[in-house]
Amino acid sequence: MRGAIVYKPDSEKLAYEVKEFLNSKGYGTDVLKNFVGLESYDFVVVVGGDGTILKTLQFVKDCPPIFAINTGRVGLLTHCEPHEYRSLLIESLESFEFEEFMRLKCVVDGMEILALNEFAVLCSIPAKLVEMRVYVDEVMVDSLRCDGILISTPLGSTAYALSTGGPIIDPYLSSVLIVPIAPFKLGWKPWVVREERKIRLSFDKRVFVIADGQKRVEVEGEVKVSKSEFPARFFKIRNRLEKLVKKLRRIC
Amino acid sequence: MRGAIVYKPDSEKLAYEVKEFLNSKGYGTDVLKNFVGLESYDFVVVVGGDGTILKTLQFVKDCPPIFAINTGRVGLLTHCEPHEYRSLLIESLESFEFEEFMRLKCVVDGMEILALNEFAVLCSIPAKLVEMRVYVDEVMVDSLRCDGILISTPLGSTAYALSTGGPIIDPYLSSVLIVPIAPFKLGWKPWVVREERKIRLSFDKRVFVIADGQKRVEVEGEVKVSKSEFPARFFKIRNRLEKLVKKLRRIC
Amino acid sequence: MRGAIVYKPDSEKLAYEVKEFLNSKGYGTDVLKNFVGLESYDFVVVVGGDGTILKTLQFVKDCPPIFAINTGRVGLLTHCEPHEYRSLLIESLESFEFEEFMRLKCVVDGMEILALNEFAVLCSIPAKLVEMRVYVDEVMVDSLRCDGILISTPLGSTAYALSTGGPIIDPYLSSVLIVPIAPFKLGWKPWVVREERKIRLSFDKRVFVIADGQKRVEVEGEVKVSKSEFPARFFKIRNRLEKLVKKLRRIC
Amino acid sequence: MRGAIVYKPDSEKLAYEVKEFLNSKGYGTDVLKNFVGLESYDFVVVVGGDGTILKTLQFVKDCPPIFAINTGRVGLLTHCEPHEYRSLLIESLESFEFEEFMRLKCVVDGMEILALNEFAVLCSIPAKLVEMRVYVDEVMVDSLRCDGILISTPLGSTAYALSTGGPIIDPYLSSVLIVPIAPFKLGWKPWVVREERKIRLSFDKRVFVIADGQKRVEVEGEVKVSKSEFPARFFKIRNRLEKLVKKLRRIC
Repeated sequence: MRGAIVYKPDSEKLAYEVKEFLNSKGYGTDVLKNFVGLESYDFVVVVGGDGTILKTLQFVKDCPPIFAINTGRVGLLTHCEPHEYRSLLIESLESFEFEEFMRLKCVVDGMEILALNEFAVLCSIPAKLVEMRVYVDEVMVDSLRCDGILISTPLGSTAYALSTGGPIIDPYLSSVLIVPIAPFKLGWKPWVVREERKIRLSFDKRVFVIADGQKRVEVEGEVKVSKSEFPARFFKIRNRLEKLVKKLRRIC
Repeated sequence: MRGAIVYKPDSEKLAYEVKEFLNSKGYGTDVLKNFVGLESYDFVVVVGGDGTILKTLQFVKDCPPIFAINTGRVGLLTHCEPHEYRSLLIESLESFEFEEFMRLKCVVDGMEILALNEFAVLCSIPAKLVEMRVYVDEVMVDSLRCDGILISTPLGSTAYALSTGGPIIDPYLSSVLIVPIAPFKLGWKPWVVREERKIRLSFDKRVFVIADGQKRVEVEGEVKVSKSEFPARFFKIRNRLEKLVKKLRRIC
Repeated sequence: MRGAIVYKPDSEKLAYEVKEFLNSKGYGTDVLKNFVGLESYDFVVVVGGDGTILKTLQFVKDCPPIFAINTGRVGLLTHCEPHEYRSLLIESLESFEFEEFMRLKCVVDGMEILALNEFAVLCSIPAKLVEMRVYVDEVMVDSLRCDGILISTPLGSTAYALSTGGPIIDPYLSSVLIVPIAPFKLGWKPWVVREERKIRLSFDKRVFVIADGQKRVEVEGEVKVSKSEFPARFFKIRNRLEKLVKKLRRIC
Repeated sequence: MRGAIVYKPDSEKLAYEVKEFLNSKGYGTDVLKNFVGLESYDFVVVVGGDGTILKTLQFVKDCPPIFAINTGRVGLLTHCEPHEYRSLLIESLESFEFEEFMRLKCVVDGMEILALNEFAVLCSIPAKLVEMRVYVDEVMVDSLRCDGILISTPLGSTAYALSTGGPIIDPYLSSVLIVPIAPFKLGWKPWVVREERKIRLSFDKRVFVIADGQKRVEVEGEVKVSKSEFPARFFKIRNRLEKLVKKLRRIC
């Protein structure tokens, strides 16, 4: 069993410390300068915050289980803080229990983009309104002028969607959250739909589709978003709900 | 096959018209003055609005399929308007396809109360704050002073919960929505959780537990809410999502 | 110069301590068991929280300047905590600088009721919708079904109105805030209007008009709310905005 | 008395029609291809929507009274629709009654920018969080990570600020509205403060300051916003509040 270690630029030292620790426990690991070739490893240790996890996931389709040591701010997706990683990491590797979390996919120009948290579909000109129509299984559920629309997973409900008036969604509730960004409309609501639903947005201006704040493509006309067959995999976090609630208090 | 017809006080005439119509088509029916004995029928026709449907459901555990003719305002739960019931009703009875929608249960003093839309847990003194703690599977997800808390089904997301800042939830997404009423707190969020979750509220004042705006009991200390094994049954509505969206426009 | 001391039931001991302290400094004071006759005093010391201040104000039209020692929770309207009242109180009495804050009035059955924070106009049956029309200088600015409507002062914007989606209003901005309670409507907004505006609510059910959570009257048909010529008077709080911000953090 | 006529590109024909009409009534006018030199005219007729009015105002400090004929969408700031301008325009010119509405100013690199609706201060990278501190008269009222902050006038409360959770503000209430855009924070509120308050934002990333969606400058460090001594002037609109309410219904 062989692991890859990736890291946020400012966390290189800890990445090498983790490598040494894992080697001393008999786990072969490589510290990767970039994120290439991750799929060929049995597991991935991310030393960084949510941003680094999200970046990592941009490089993998068939995702090895991830263990994340938080060197960022809130670290909603991470497993632990730097001072406590040792026993938790070994425990995770020994049990090798992991959880799968749905990713969303969006096909743009024949290329499939994945997102663990959300796709933000934003007018390409800042502070300009774009006319959006939101279709769920081809039923138009909303039509509005806005800065953009978020299509979010449950995990993403505590990321960007938290900022735009969405509810918090149980990480284990299979669902998709749709919420407008700055809707110029009096009557609007976030929608929470079954994860099997096909979502389509059509718009009258060029937009950016931004996956997890990591990858940005410019699109015109429409985008379609649906469940990807490639989930993210994370080593099991016990009491995930409880830990989520605790971390949310930090962003009060 | 025998049907019961129940009605809103102002819709008695239409109720008898429906009876005659069904008899002429070979379906035996009784028009009931009250709502007693509904469970022994094979189907129920409700002539009224959402309120009448909700009242009907207070009288049944094992629910015969319901067909509802809207004589109320928006009628989100109803099948059709009075002028169009004939063909739709016969079609429903012939195919006898129905859908089940989860109800919530709350046990108070050993008595089980059911709700299709929501339980509203409200301070028994109007405009007084009650200190509430909200537990989901015994994890305290929120603690706040408020007028009350709603625990709502997906169908209920377009009822009372729509008024208190909740999202709209896909009627087919198995989930429970928790949303405070007038929280005296800057940082709060609606929560959407898996329908299997056990919800417990504890509070420091006497509260009213109000099921679907129909039944009210006074409680102190705490209440527990969870999925009931007795769903509501409605004759299938084709394009339910599309019809929901259309009706929501009326409450803009 | 003669002062009255009123108090929250649990703060009687501190009230008498304040009396002794003021006497020792040469200020004659009476501790009042009830709130009668307050207008004949030159100043009032309230030992309690916001609730006790609001109760006090129900007993005075022409208001002597108030100094409040917080023995409640947040105490947004109070001057200081119990451990620090001595120097601040003497300073206030010596300078005798005070500020006036607008109260709202509502005439019900020929009787004028005053409110410093807000009038809550609520359906008299809990969790029942009332149809409300909101008029500002006889322009109907909103029409909706809801649990009720708040008409709030700037000071009240951090009280009940904070719970119902209102903004925070500068305590020195002469204005009135109108915000619905649990509106069953997709498109609604709080309104902030000039304090000279006359507000009228009309409704289709009996409502409670609740002044500052203290006084409750039942009304049918309509109520009119406008600026009262009897403001509340408080000894000057230096850096009021800064202190408000600090206290608001406690209700996060 | 001499008037300038400016127009939205698609409304040139109507602009010339208005010119002819005014000439026939004895008012000398120039149709301007660009917006240069407007201050030397006695009045300005804008043929366009709110965007064209806002653009016009970017070209004037000491503002001649404006009359606007709506050829845009909602036209909240306009006086009338194309079919009804004749009598209203003549009436306005004869009475020459106008109203002044506060503009905000922001000094960037020694250059003063004005806004009638709002300054949007937005992270220069779309969908990236910027850490903002909001100071009102040097009291830090909020500190948060967000997409940006709006500083809006009462007129602007029905423009961009309507999209971001702000209240509707009486056009005649002298005040400034501060509201975050997509705040990654659970507990936040719009603030409404006296128009004399000095507002300062400090931030940790480069931002765009966008005046009325018309002018954009890039800034780092901080910006200060306060009341400008150069208000906008509009020919009087009778029943402005009533008309505003009617127009708002169109953006439901």
